[in-house]
Amino acid sequence: MTISILISEVGPRDGLQSIKRIMPLAAKKAWITAEATAGVREIEVGSFVPAKILPQLADTAELVAHARGIPGLTVAALVPNLKGAEAAVQAGVHKVTLPLSASESHSLKNLRRTHAQVLDDVRAIARLLGGLPSGERPHFEGGISTAFGCTIEGEVAESKVVELAEALMQAGCDEVGLSDTTGYANPAQVRRLVAAVKHAVGSSSLNGLHLHNTRGLGLANVLAGIESGITTFDSSLGGLGGCPFAPGASGNIVTEDLVFMLQAMGISVGIDLSRLLEVRRILIDALPGEPLYGFTPDAGLPLGFVPPTGDKS
Amino acid sequence: MTISILISEVGPRDGLQSIKRIMPLAAKKAWITAEATAGVREIEVGSFVPAKILPQLADTAELVAHARGIPGLTVAALVPNLKGAEAAVQAGVHKVTLPLSASESHSLKNLRRTHAQVLDDVRAIARLLGGLPSGERPHFEGGISTAFGCTIEGEVAESKVVELAEALMQAGCDEVGLSDTTGYANPAQVRRLVAAVKHAVGSSSLNGLHLHNTRGLGLANVLAGIESGITTFDSSLGGLGGCPFAPGASGNIVTEDLVFMLQAMGISVGIDLSRLLEVRRILIDALPGEPLYGFTPDAGLPLGFVPPTGDKS
Repeated sequence: MTISILISEVGPRDGLQSIKRIMPLAAKKAWITAEATAGVREIEVGSFVPAKILPQLADTAELVAHARGIPGLTVAALVPNLKGAEAAVQAGVHKVTLPLSASESHSLKNLRRTHAQVLDDVRAIARLLGGLPSGERPHFEGGISTAFGCTIEGEVAESKVVELAEALMQAGCDEVGLSDTTGYANPAQVRRLVAAVKHAVGSSSLNGLHLHNTRGLGLANVLAGIESGITTFDSSLGGLGGCPFAPGASGNIVTEDLVFMLQAMGISVGIDLSRLLEVRRILIDALPGEPLYGFTPDAGLPLGFVPPTGDKS
Repeated sequence: MTISILISEVGPRDGLQSIKRIMPLAAKKAWITAEATAGVREIEVGSFVPAKILPQLADTAELVAHARGIPGLTVAALVPNLKGAEAAVQAGVHKVTLPLSASESHSLKNLRRTHAQVLDDVRAIARLLGGLPSGERPHFEGGISTAFGCTIEGEVAESKVVELAEALMQAGCDEVGLSDTTGYANPAQVRRLVAAVKHAVGSSSLNGLHLHNTRGLGLANVLAGIESGITTFDSSLGGLGGCPFAPGASGNIVTEDLVFMLQAMGISVGIDLSRLLEVRRILIDALPGEPLYGFTPDAGLPLGFVPPTGDKS
């Protein structure tokens, strides 16, 4: 049996929102095009938040329009609320993700909303999407952030995450995802929580993990996720936006290292790793001096490395 | 069932031999003492090689004498040949590891010896150790380096590694270990190779892995190792000696991150992680400016982190 994993590039959203500088629109377009050309099949191109909150992502609608022109690419965007979802629909995204923080303290601090208020928005978004012709209806994911722990509350009860996953599905999401926003996750916890959520909402309603590498466990957590039936992993080219030397570091797992691990294991991801490594050049040129991460880009591919059959090489 | 894992600190040997500067003897002693005090139960304190080849490790005999005075600590050393083993016995080590490179090209380049010549030495060392009173006889491990791939030969056949493991056991080793010298290993390969070697030599004759983090997969490979029944992992405090930005980087997995992952998973290692993190200060002071690695030291422990019962906290 050949396992196939979908890598969802979130750098243009999670990476760019985590740095202060604004990447020029042309560079963002070039980045998205280059990654898609390297074989990446899903990219979260931005977030439909007010420009005054995240000026780095103010051009998300233009990026959606650009990315929709790339054949075979799933164009995803984050939406914080109904208004964001309306803008996402208007822009024509294929997938919207609404974040819900498992830690209510975190939700109140970051979104100024309770769980109940966020779930109200989920229902309103589901109604909006339900009214669209099926060909124009984006896939709707509820992303549970701080699912593995919270920097304010500490431990987050697994029963709370399960309960919220059920609530998101009942409120009209097509699927749920789990996010290790704080980099607290460990492989044993990934296995437990994925199994519990899959058991509660049905195996096909949890497919994706958004993992960080804050404490260096990102790829070990991916491995545990794969063993638990996860088929989609978010990652960021060059780990952009994640600085392990800064408090509150984001620290997405690095797309290049993730692709290398999966391909080395014989798992197809449909990506040409050599080409992907070249895409870093776009980030280096557009954001000179911005720290990039990843081990494989520095070490290079092993001598005689052969990607799995089906992946470009 | 509580799993327990032995962490074997190899920084004083593999870390220090990979950097040009020589750490003063007093600092080495302080490092070894501090790690043992933090709960580390096995430390490879050096290598019995000629001082002209590795002046960084010329004081290994003095370190063995020092470390033997620490109650409960297993004092390990590398030996390249019979002469080294004689010196190790004289110094009073508890464990000797003789490296044998699975890639014969690598063996010829680094040790200037064929597999047959190294196996002759193994037999001679086994005779030497067999002649000692059982209380003074060090444990004898054959460490198969480049077991997961070679920078000269590329892929190393798994059948070759299995064959060498059998040869090492037949030549008189007490156990064998597998080393990812080049940072080529991936989790699927770890599972396959560990299973194959355990099948060939008996499960209890392969207990340890020496993994590198050259391409960021170190902890994922540890996870695969644990699932395959491995109970001892080598690592280096601060990843000392491993520079991902230099060709031929060693890049041992980082002891701090390894301890964090295992403890977060509920696996006991007998180590007080907060105290272990403080030991870095000794390296920083003794080798100012030398790059240290690890994510957990920068990110800190998660809020409310509780180590497994039995581990110090």
